[in-house]
Amino acid sequence: MSNAFNTPFDKLRQIDKELILLEHTSALLQWDQETGMPSQAIEERSDQIALMQGLAHDRLTSSEVGDLIEQAWDKVKLGPGGEGNSVSDDPGPGGPGLPPEEDPQFFNRAFLRVFRRNYDRAVKIPRRLVTETAQTTSRAQAAWIKAREADDFTLFQPHMEKILSLTLEKAEALGYPEQPYDALLDEFEPGMPTSRVEEVFSDLKTELAPLVTRITSAQKADDSFRSRGYPAAEQKKFSLHLLQQMGYDFDRGRLDESAHPFTTSLGGNDVRVTTRYHEDDLFSAIFGTIHEGGHGLYELGIDSAYHGTCVGEGTSLGIHESQSRTWENLIGRSLPFWKRFFPELKRRFPEQLKDIDADTFGRAVNRVQPSLIRIEADEVTYSLHVILRFELELALVNHKIEVKDLPDAWNDLMEQLIGIRPPSDADGVLQDVHWSMGAIGYFPTYALGNLYGAQFLNKMKQDLSDVDALIENGDLLSIRKWQKEHIHRFGSVYTAPELIQKVTGESLNPRFFIDYLEKKFSRLNVL
Amino acid sequence: MSNAFNTPFDKLRQIDKELILLEHTSALLQWDQETGMPSQAIEERSDQIALMQGLAHDRLTSSEVGDLIEQAWDKVKLGPGGEGNSVSDDPGPGGPGLPPEEDPQFFNRAFLRVFRRNYDRAVKIPRRLVTETAQTTSRAQAAWIKAREADDFTLFQPHMEKILSLTLEKAEALGYPEQPYDALLDEFEPGMPTSRVEEVFSDLKTELAPLVTRITSAQKADDSFRSRGYPAAEQKKFSLHLLQQMGYDFDRGRLDESAHPFTTSLGGNDVRVTTRYHEDDLFSAIFGTIHEGGHGLYELGIDSAYHGTCVGEGTSLGIHESQSRTWENLIGRSLPFWKRFFPELKRRFPEQLKDIDADTFGRAVNRVQPSLIRIEADEVTYSLHVILRFELELALVNHKIEVKDLPDAWNDLMEQLIGIRPPSDADGVLQDVHWSMGAIGYFPTYALGNLYGAQFLNKMKQDLSDVDALIENGDLLSIRKWQKEHIHRFGSVYTAPELIQKVTGESLNPRFFIDYLEKKFSRLNVL
Repeated sequence: MSNAFNTPFDKLRQIDKELILLEHTSALLQWDQETGMPSQAIEERSDQIALMQGLAHDRLTSSEVGDLIEQAWDKVKLGPGGEGNSVSDDPGPGGPGLPPEEDPQFFNRAFLRVFRRNYDRAVKIPRRLVTETAQTTSRAQAAWIKAREADDFTLFQPHMEKILSLTLEKAEALGYPEQPYDALLDEFEPGMPTSRVEEVFSDLKTELAPLVTRITSAQKADDSFRSRGYPAAEQKKFSLHLLQQMGYDFDRGRLDESAHPFTTSLGGNDVRVTTRYHEDDLFSAIFGTIHEGGHGLYELGIDSAYHGTCVGEGTSLGIHESQSRTWENLIGRSLPFWKRFFPELKRRFPEQLKDIDADTFGRAVNRVQPSLIRIEADEVTYSLHVILRFELELALVNHKIEVKDLPDAWNDLMEQLIGIRPPSDADGVLQDVHWSMGAIGYFPTYALGNLYGAQFLNKMKQDLSDVDALIENGDLLSIRKWQKEHIHRFGSVYTAPELIQKVTGESLNPRFFIDYLEKKFSRLNVL
Repeated sequence: MSNAFNTPFDKLRQIDKELILLEHTSALLQWDQETGMPSQAIEERSDQIALMQGLAHDRLTSSEVGDLIEQAWDKVKLGPGGEGNSVSDDPGPGGPGLPPEEDPQFFNRAFLRVFRRNYDRAVKIPRRLVTETAQTTSRAQAAWIKAREADDFTLFQPHMEKILSLTLEKAEALGYPEQPYDALLDEFEPGMPTSRVEEVFSDLKTELAPLVTRITSAQKADDSFRSRGYPAAEQKKFSLHLLQQMGYDFDRGRLDESAHPFTTSLGGNDVRVTTRYHEDDLFSAIFGTIHEGGHGLYELGIDSAYHGTCVGEGTSLGIHESQSRTWENLIGRSLPFWKRFFPELKRRFPEQLKDIDADTFGRAVNRVQPSLIRIEADEVTYSLHVILRFELELALVNHKIEVKDLPDAWNDLMEQLIGIRPPSDADGVLQDVHWSMGAIGYFPTYALGNLYGAQFLNKMKQDLSDVDALIENGDLLSIRKWQKEHIHRFGSVYTAPELIQKVTGESLNPRFFIDYLEKKFSRLNVL
């Protein structure tokens, strides 16, 4: 065994393997907690998860790792195909100096880039800050629940102030090219500068607002049938059927129930999704399942050569969200999809859907309506909810506003962007859990996912002759095959900006999403 | 935090806590593997489990631990109530020098005894032997499956020879008071000398053989209705109902399905049981569930002050088996039990059981029949299957027979003890997985469980006025309460020999089991 780990690179691979095993074990502990753990087990379960994360942190930041990275980095730079100054200096796929995928150093360079990034983040943040953040967010989450119940932002305000202060400290510890928010965003969307998000969201905002007005003034979609009472057991069968049609492999995954749907990787061959069945809302499980199935297909589509390495997972939350939202919205809320699947749905619920046809159903799942709550928002207004959060986060981080100003700022921006003013903080600034968990810089990835998704779809439509016909024929596997070939299989070897360039030939462009919406809603005769 | 772990004892407690967290995490990885893991996840799952076990081994055997134990041991010896030379030198409960449970050092001494025992076993076995055993048994299990399928012992023989050789090496490494088998038995039944098992099994054998003849010659029990087709969903509901009646707490446990029923602790408040539903055998799930429920109640009944420590688990496999077998057989196969529960069972399966009454059912579940397979054996012949394995293991370890002699020796002993000769090795020497896993010294605990169980029951009947009436009234919680008070709550603070003495006032005595069987079968009018 010992001679297999002679080089610094091999030693890093071995350390990385242990880190991934710990990460996946931690994921199982969390999956079990959400899907069926006995309620009284929570205290020891928290200790188990903390131990896994602590062991991983200690292993990653042990004194030898920094030296090994330096040594391995030199080798890769000097190796065949290593003409660039460093992996992260590569100008991107297609540009000069990028190693082709056939280059034996291709994986090695990607591996080192991702591993070094993880290492840098882990060593730059002092242990005191990690501990203090964990304690603060633990208390903040409890306070957030109470504040939301009491509809009183002031109960959460001191916690949010502490979180913001720790977050700013973290940004300084990590460092950033232009502005502190870069360091925060980079955790979730590596390689994406804040300034680019600002440009893109600015364009998006300008386009979306009038579109919402045009659609809502013309649309007459009735979705009241969704609450007619749909037994969970039948919903479950239909959810399983949809996943099977999408090509989800149940020898490498599972579908379970949890309060909030999620996807988690417990191994390269063990990617699990969850959904929840609301008998008074037919749409909840259907679109929750398709959404998580999209995440699952991404993880399951990664090249098996990358399994068990830091490269063997989706490259960013934005790209991940592009895959889930493509399946949920671009495919799952398309008319061709329901032409194909509505008859099967109706066979399961003949009484509840007796007066509904595929066309009516397809219009109902596309009902656009300015509303207060992000997670209930439709495909068109959704990104505006995200832009609101991004602008507020940026204002906080750049000291343009203070935490105490948040409720008013939130309400003003809601009125400006979406046209309605929240009657309460509970339905406004207190609606999301993210800030109480310390996740500042996370929200933009939701809207980036919409944009990436539409830009990928545009390319897919060029490559595959008639995507709508594939969907209507139920040939979802051809779509999945394209995604795997162009996106999924690469795992994290390309950053999101590299990947969108490589696949579509240009950088992120919100025009594709706007075009997609305009085309879709004019086909629905509401534009 | 740091000042909380100043003393050697406190440091050991902290290390022990980590070890238990790793052990319980490993238990979750295995539970998930048996109950629902996607099939293709097996390879990484094996790595995850191996990592948890490796981390635990490294932590337990790190250089500081031996010193800490010595230092802590001195403190405990000198502390109040520490008049003995060492904890393990205590003559047992009630004897001179035993600290009363109220003594503040009581837990500390028990903790150190169990922790030191685990440490000693871990450091005495060289790493090479651990690795070689893991590799050998991994191959041996695959070979055993093939040998059993081919009904050809010679395919397994070389693997068994290697396992025996490694086992003998392990016994020498561990050391033993009288004979090598002591070291093997001690892993599963700490504190129990081989010589005592020999005496007890010798008595048991003498008594059981004629009893089997007397019962089978007089018994006319028909259990053919058990295969009438019982839908799994209804069986599941009945299994859940039985566990609830036994006082199994579903806020601290779960019931799932697996190919082979088992019980596992994932935490002091997370003890899970499994069963399997065979639609063509009504008894399989019922008695599997009750059996595992008995194991589960033991773990769930341990004093919560011991949770998360090495003392917070059942003290030996024999005592564990006594609790599962008490529930399965002494309670679950009693006539009063089925007077109470048969009407409920019949309500679930009115068609299948229309011509069956409680009395017929109670006789059917007690059908005694010499048979080839241990796991299908009845309550009376079961121990004879175990004695056969014990005698063969002892003969192997003491070089009285060689591995190549096993098939003939097995068949001869089967004929001698149970009166039938296996027609094939598959139904003889190759039927159990244990030896291929390297588990030599494990089998005796199954029969010890029967004996402990009957001895405990005798005491319970003295303490609770009319146990049969409690059962018939469905007051299983009173029985559970007695078990918790006298057995469960102590976890591992007493060894099995200490516990049986403490609870019943005498050492292990097979007479109680024989008396129980004679009384039971005479009530069934077959003696």
